[in-house]
Amino acid sequence: MMAGGNLLRDLPDARAGEVIEGLMAAPRVRIERIVSLGQTSPPGFWYDQPQAEWVLLLAGAARLRFEDEPHCRPLSPGDWVEIAAHRRHRVDWTDPATPTVWLAVFYEPL
Amino acid sequence: MMAGGNLLRDLPDARAGEVIEGLMAAPRVRIERIVSLGQTSPPGFWYDQPQAEWVLLLAGAARLRFEDEPHCRPLSPGDWVEIAAHRRHRVDWTDPATPTVWLAVFYEPL
Repeated sequence: MMAGGNLLRDLPDARAGEVIEGLMAAPRVRIERIVSLGQTSPPGFWYDQPQAEWVLLLAGAARLRFEDEPHCRPLSPGDWVEIAAHRRHRVDWTDPATPTVWLAVFYEPL
Repeated sequence: MMAGGNLLRDLPDARAGEVIEGLMAAPRVRIERIVSLGQTSPPGFWYDQPQAEWVLLLAGAARLRFEDEPHCRPLSPGDWVEIAAHRRHRVDWTDPATPTVWLAVFYEPL
């Protein structure tokens, strides 16, 4: 695993699928960069994660949906959201025209 | 503590000193936003932290110095650096003309 880099330069080609890259891993926490290009969660699919997730949108645009909320949350660069463990959510939309770059911190909440 | 927000909008006024805001705290990991405006570490001061730090520069510009390296590392938006626990380092410079926004993830490495 690298010791440094730039999250916004030399982006991978995500046309064929989201590209997930591990940036740091410790026993109870890990950090990933995710690059999306138009991908969304499959219809009817909900993430239901045992770990909590702190996620930040660095570039691009997305819409995040929680099962327990009626509307999507639009996300722009700088927006961050805390997702509790097992809180069901999905990515309803990512911009198909420009890469969306996420920083995700997964951690054990207790 | 909040459950979401934007790290780049409505920045606090850091003219009188760095502004540190907790974004997430769990038993072995915490996330902070730090806004600097020209601040640097005091002359001769080195951070020597018991926790590891994963730090990302979101906006502005800075120079980070490790005691075991001869030169500063210039940091631009998107640049991230892994700082091992007890690896002595200091902030040699932050841009005095525009806010520098850091995202810092402190965690127990073992």
